[in-house]
Amino acid sequence: MKAVRYYGPGDIRVDDIPEPSPGDKQIKIKVSVLCGSDLHSYFVLQAPVSPTLTTPHPTTQETLPVVMGHEFSGTIVELGKAVDTSKFSVGQKVVVEPLISCGKCGPCLSGTRNLCHQITFIGIGGWGGGLAEYTVTNENLVHVLPDNIPLDIGALIEPLAVSWHAMKISHFKPGSNVLIIGAGPVGLLLLKILKAEGASWIGVSEPAAARRETAIKLDASAVFNPLTEDVIAETVRATDGGADVVFDCAGIQASLDAALGAVRTQGNVVEVAIWEKNPVINILTLQTKEAILTASLAYDRRHAELLKVVAEGRIPNLEELITRKIALEDFVEKGIKALIAEKDTQIKILVHP
Amino acid sequence: MKAVRYYGPGDIRVDDIPEPSPGDKQIKIKVSVLCGSDLHSYFVLQAPVSPTLTTPHPTTQETLPVVMGHEFSGTIVELGKAVDTSKFSVGQKVVVEPLISCGKCGPCLSGTRNLCHQITFIGIGGWGGGLAEYTVTNENLVHVLPDNIPLDIGALIEPLAVSWHAMKISHFKPGSNVLIIGAGPVGLLLLKILKAEGASWIGVSEPAAARRETAIKLDASAVFNPLTEDVIAETVRATDGGADVVFDCAGIQASLDAALGAVRTQGNVVEVAIWEKNPVINILTLQTKEAILTASLAYDRRHAELLKVVAEGRIPNLEELITRKIALEDFVEKGIKALIAEKDTQIKILVHP
Ligand SMILES: [Zn+2]
Ligand SMILES: [Zn+2]
Ligand SMILES: [Zn+2]
Ligand SMILES: [Zn+2]
Repeated sequence: MKAVRYYGPGDIRVDDIPEPSPGDKQIKIKVSVLCGSDLHSYFVLQAPVSPTLTTPHPTTQETLPVVMGHEFSGTIVELGKAVDTSKFSVGQKVVVEPLISCGKCGPCLSGTRNLCHQITFIGIGGWGGGLAEYTVTNENLVHVLPDNIPLDIGALIEPLAVSWHAMKISHFKPGSNVLIIGAGPVGLLLLKILKAEGASWIGVSEPAAARRETAIKLDASAVFNPLTEDVIAETVRATDGGADVVFDCAGIQASLDAALGAVRTQGNVVEVAIWEKNPVINILTLQTKEAILTASLAYDRRHAELLKVVAEGRIPNLEELITRKIALEDFVEKGIKALIAEKDTQIKILVHP
Repeated sequence: MKAVRYYGPGDIRVDDIPEPSPGDKQIKIKVSVLCGSDLHSYFVLQAPVSPTLTTPHPTTQETLPVVMGHEFSGTIVELGKAVDTSKFSVGQKVVVEPLISCGKCGPCLSGTRNLCHQITFIGIGGWGGGLAEYTVTNENLVHVLPDNIPLDIGALIEPLAVSWHAMKISHFKPGSNVLIIGAGPVGLLLLKILKAEGASWIGVSEPAAARRETAIKLDASAVFNPLTEDVIAETVRATDGGADVVFDCAGIQASLDAALGAVRTQGNVVEVAIWEKNPVINILTLQTKEAILTASLAYDRRHAELLKVVAEGRIPNLEELITRKIALEDFVEKGIKALIAEKDTQIKILVHP
């Protein structure tokens, strides 16, 4: 079968590899829809959690190349012989929770798989991936899609889980005033979730005009251009003292400064971004506000609760987040560069193999 | 009467000033015991919350010079005519809660006086102070000392409230494993409080040998010299994965780095120190642990609960923290420099006027 494999930075190839067979407790899935816009993960995230060409990843035991693609939905085509048939059957639509943890370290044993010391992801560190015709996955990572969630929306569940987890571990509650810094996919998915969960006011700070427009379409209460507007003053004014929660989805010095400045006393700043360079923190601001700085990483068994919430219609119109659909051939041939060039107007791009 | 007044950095004078009379809702107190060891507050804290010689503090409306001394106990000698006589009477032993807030800003109106935008303290920003024979204080800042708390211990209640507040707003609970970084007065008071409140393990990191010895005397589970020992590795080993809470009472780059390294996943780092220079924060560590960084500032109406806890004997042997008693004359004439020189061996020095 055809599969897109990662050999190292800038070296991505379409290979012909054997169709995989499920082990005893594995499920074989025909991939239907892949969410292909989370490209930065292939470049930024890859390094810390990826194996190399010669050193296997300690958890997956695989070396490069690995099949790519961690956000996908599909259809069960075969069950391993020990798979729980009260839960799974051939023909079911499913999504995969791609987080791979070692199961042995302190965080794993205390029930926080996302903080595993040897974390990796399907599609990044081995164990197959969504950029292939078929993949096999351990049954405990497979979730059946409720009937009323189409496969296209199913492919959004993984990135949605990242934002959902950030919201769940934050101090957000219905009625909160929230500032989102950075309106890339994570920030816009958060906007969607926070609207659904009953935020009173949601401000969005974003330098790209096209992304600010999208935030307005998704019903942000206010949008700010941090290059020309005083985001802190505007937020303090709109919220009468500061945001209850600020989600920093940008991950630069200016966004941390704005977050600490815009949060209210005893409010919560949540770092959702993947940082490339450590910032200076204004400790006096943290202290004179007794602010609470937290950070969220991926998700930990959030898929089941999230699928229930989506099936109940509590996060409506998720299809608004799908800005384009393309064929797998286009993704491979010319997709990646085009997607990066259009990053300000595209939110989530679906790939149909 | 004689009073020690602050005119500016390095300019402290013994003045003869009129004995104050209480306003309608004020109480006149004869100062009995002053805790004189918290000297850094006269130099470090002064600037941001002090008036100048020409510009009055917006909350107290006073200019320099102001009477010094914010940690003291005393005896009521006169009540203003509108003071609540069901609560107060002449001859009662009392302590003063010296935090002065504006009562009008957002934090004040939402019940967090310690985060007031125009905060100051008795003894720093006006409204009298403990380095005088008499002082008058608004009745709402005066707390009656329970009978079984002597005046000497009463003088420790204010600094104890700082550490008590830090503990109360942290994620500490009975059974927690805790690392304290920095064994100055705030760190050692915390050690005393955390022992009393049922910590399982308390490590103390401190470069000064004399302070480490004091921490051992106060029953720390382990002490570490951060200049020669690997505090992170030792803490992770002793706690099987990291401290539940780290209190940073040092406030330097190395202490923040050690705190983030030594805290467990989803654990809490509390900044108690007064920082002089903003540090770089290792966001990747914060994120891969989903650690919680908070900060505490002074206290907010903690005196009543703390006096109850001390009266019940729940923080025993507080007199261990009193390392010397001196006369007021000695404090004024030659005290300050000597106290700074002996800072590693002295915890709390009481001054008897
Ligand atoms: Zn693990
Ligand atoms: Zn993703
Ligand atoms: Zn105020
Ligand atoms: Zn003090």
